[in-house]
Amino acid sequence: MRIGLDMMGGDFAPAEAVLGVQRFLSNETFKDATVYALGKKELFETELANLDRCIIIDAPEVISMQEHPTKALKEKPNSSIAIGFGMLATGKIDAFISAGNTGVMLVGATFVIKPIEGVQRPTIPTLVPNINGGHGLLLDVGINADCKPEHLDQFAVLGSNYAEHVLGIKNPRVGLLNIGEEEGKGNLLAKATYPILKENQHINFVGNIEGRDLFLDKADVVVCEGFTGNIVLKLSESIYHVFGQKRNIKDEYLDQFNYETYGGTPVLGVNKTVIVGHGISNANAFDNMLGQAYKIAASNLPEHLKGKFVISGE
Amino acid sequence: MRIGLDMMGGDFAPAEAVLGVQRFLSNETFKDATVYALGKKELFETELANLDRCIIIDAPEVISMQEHPTKALKEKPNSSIAIGFGMLATGKIDAFISAGNTGVMLVGATFVIKPIEGVQRPTIPTLVPNINGGHGLLLDVGINADCKPEHLDQFAVLGSNYAEHVLGIKNPRVGLLNIGEEEGKGNLLAKATYPILKENQHINFVGNIEGRDLFLDKADVVVCEGFTGNIVLKLSESIYHVFGQKRNIKDEYLDQFNYETYGGTPVLGVNKTVIVGHGISNANAFDNMLGQAYKIAASNLPEHLKGKFVISGE
Repeated sequence: MRIGLDMMGGDFAPAEAVLGVQRFLSNETFKDATVYALGKKELFETELANLDRCIIIDAPEVISMQEHPTKALKEKPNSSIAIGFGMLATGKIDAFISAGNTGVMLVGATFVIKPIEGVQRPTIPTLVPNINGGHGLLLDVGINADCKPEHLDQFAVLGSNYAEHVLGIKNPRVGLLNIGEEEGKGNLLAKATYPILKENQHINFVGNIEGRDLFLDKADVVVCEGFTGNIVLKLSESIYHVFGQKRNIKDEYLDQFNYETYGGTPVLGVNKTVIVGHGISNANAFDNMLGQAYKIAASNLPEHLKGKFVISGE
Repeated sequence: MRIGLDMMGGDFAPAEAVLGVQRFLSNETFKDATVYALGKKELFETELANLDRCIIIDAPEVISMQEHPTKALKEKPNSSIAIGFGMLATGKIDAFISAGNTGVMLVGATFVIKPIEGVQRPTIPTLVPNINGGHGLLLDVGINADCKPEHLDQFAVLGSNYAEHVLGIKNPRVGLLNIGEEEGKGNLLAKATYPILKENQHINFVGNIEGRDLFLDKADVVVCEGFTGNIVLKLSESIYHVFGQKRNIKDEYLDQFNYETYGGTPVLGVNKTVIVGHGISNANAFDNMLGQAYKIAASNLPEHLKGKFVISGE
């Protein structure tokens, strides 16, 4: 398993990325993994040069967090992100991770790696900790702020397959984020989406999921448009911030709301494994992203998804 | 101050409503308040008959939680809710509260009490506890699932006046719930709403508020459509449920997420004080709703709102 990591992405790069790589490579679970460390090599080669299974790829250009996505990718072919996507597209690595400019990562995933045939909108999910243990998957959490019912229908298939093949949940329960329990409740989008999900043979639809149900293990996958999803994502992250950090509460379940636990989010619906990290990623987050990339690439998720989408001409 | 309370509303009525009335009337702060207890009098007159400042109004019909709003209000003129709205409309009471059928309450507020001139959509807010103390106001939280920018603009004025005249916040900061910090971010609705709020002279607009900012005291009033607002409301209530009740964490700030603290939500934008309670309201919630009704009615909120809305022909 060959995983490319952008050493230049995130607020604490490359120092925290270096620590993350060291931790990941010392983990027995991933002993057949090789990390391709991409970036300005003079900034991290001393630390990584004598690690087994770590290959340094020099990328002299750096894309900053503020740069315009499509422009940056075109104008900086020797940046870590451009080189990473190039290697992923040509099969030189099996997964690519960056905690850098999210827009550039999404452009790379969509235009270099490309959507799986029939997928109208690649999407990003987040894991939601369940009070009973385990996790639910919520998607989209921010890249598709305005959606049509058929987009939510595709998110349901993408999320369901991720839950099954990466998280190992059999016949995952799929819910629709909504503001009432019964069919017929909701805004125009939710009302129009419900019957489509109900008829979708590729998923195990269990109905509406309310805001109060999100942590209660009522579904394994919950779909929504990216506006509400992003509000929920950031509100959930802030639960750890206000209770764990500001109120100093120690609790195992609360700790799971710490974004570091997850590291990053995969881009679902594209042909290869791409992971986008949080701008404030630390060593722990980088370590977890590498593990996550390993699992997704090993699951062969894109193969499972092929043929499950109607090829239309949106 | 004369406050009408539906004794039949909510899962634990009338027993918990009785306890709430007793507590409220023994509170020195509200010593000039009279409670009008509406419902099937044989169910609570023994407990309330010898209370000073409590007047029992018999209402032999009961509207259940499942009934159709407009039909129920028309067909059961002797129900506690129908009588309560009648008394409020004719000035026999200054405020009316029910934890019963929410749909019936909204129909009553809208069609019996009626919107303030120019208000297109009455709305319901919720209080959001700030980590630094105090509260923010979030609206709409569920009765307007699909909104136009001008609706959010009106919610901003309604919320701002509530914050100023009821919560006592001077020049309240108004934010737009959104998925990015800068102008130009968001879904179509948020993008179209931002410039309208920016130009609104009746409010102190401070820009976008992200999901992570909701508990961080960045705004006193946050506006959104009722779909996202309801998800946030119920998710926030579930924070108390999962951490306070299931994980058994004791924390002063966490306790503020307990819905009982607030009791109910006012219907903003109508001509009188109407409060809708949670279906699971207990004594504490009824007590707090009575106190809240007192404060809103005393603030003369509808008077402050008059003349602040463009009279259009929606």
